[in-house]
Amino acid sequence: MARPRQFDEQDAVSTATDVFWRRGYHATSVRDLGAELHLTPSSLYRTFTDKHTLFLRALDHYRATETVQAQRLLASTGRPIREVLREWMVWLVTCQSGEEPGRGCFVVNTTTELGGGDVEVRRRIEASFEVTRESLRSLLQEGRRTGQLSDGLDIDAAVEMLFTTVLGLRVRERAGHDVAHLTTAIDYALQAL
Amino acid sequence: MARPRQFDEQDAVSTATDVFWRRGYHATSVRDLGAELHLTPSSLYRTFTDKHTLFLRALDHYRATETVQAQRLLASTGRPIREVLREWMVWLVTCQSGEEPGRGCFVVNTTTELGGGDVEVRRRIEASFEVTRESLRSLLQEGRRTGQLSDGLDIDAAVEMLFTTVLGLRVRERAGHDVAHLTTAIDYALQAL
Repeated sequence: MARPRQFDEQDAVSTATDVFWRRGYHATSVRDLGAELHLTPSSLYRTFTDKHTLFLRALDHYRATETVQAQRLLASTGRPIREVLREWMVWLVTCQSGEEPGRGCFVVNTTTELGGGDVEVRRRIEASFEVTRESLRSLLQEGRRTGQLSDGLDIDAAVEMLFTTVLGLRVRERAGHDVAHLTTAIDYALQAL
Repeated sequence: MARPRQFDEQDAVSTATDVFWRRGYHATSVRDLGAELHLTPSSLYRTFTDKHTLFLRALDHYRATETVQAQRLLASTGRPIREVLREWMVWLVTCQSGEEPGRGCFVVNTTTELGGGDVEVRRRIEASFEVTRESLRSLLQEGRRTGQLSDGLDIDAAVEMLFTTVLGLRVRERAGHDVAHLTTAIDYALQAL
């Protein structure tokens, strides 16, 4: 009996996410995708329409998996807020389990590669960014509510600063910068809260 | 009399920088470059060897021009340090004269597109990054010397934080984020000094 098609598709999208993440959109050809997904170009077109459609599915897949992982790390479960933030940010710039270092963030890489010109891509980038900002916001709100952060903390401004720092960290991880330097930047940014 | 070859080359490198900056390395074909530079592929190969060599020259050209502009903005000439830093950072995320918005930074775009794998590219990326870090460092040192910044300021740590913020800002400018939000992030980061 053939494997159910749904299963194969999820598997293929996951592999495609890896390929696009490592190489970027333009450097990945349909031929590359076919080789990695073990699909002929015609099966690939039949299942995923075209490279662009598969890329959008890869971005959706990344958000569904990476973001969930980040949100789990950002769930405070009663631990000190600064400690939660620090661990999450260090995790972002550390080689993640099973991944080679220097991959950066698929969403950040896509942002700088494709810019704002592709509406469907941009919508997905902003949705991912918003998840990060929302997680930061609720953590800072909790910190203020529990008295760990000052009553006078401007949460919107702090979210803007931390979110900007996070994007910079992802660029630096992609550039292969030393984790010690990145941790110094993280600690300085958190000190500002 | 033909124009001197040196002049044409500089002109062509400048145009190539624009093309690579807007589109990225992989999305730019030799055919695109030929069209923009008004060169046949064979003249292009004769003058610049190959796409990769021309790309390296574009990175050098960018460093020579953009970085000089940034350094001029970062020269304090007696103005308050925080004001100099703020103006420079706002300049980085504002549409620069004669350029369309959302281009980001050619060096940051290159970092995320190509990662750490290309040694010659990486060397140029790090040289550009180092110029930025050095400018930040001397400005902070001046701020400490003149009493505008606290004696206890950890300059190395502050440079790491500000440099990371700058990279994040360039990603956000590329993503088309609102200048008001970016300015909020800048002000928050500077408040941390």
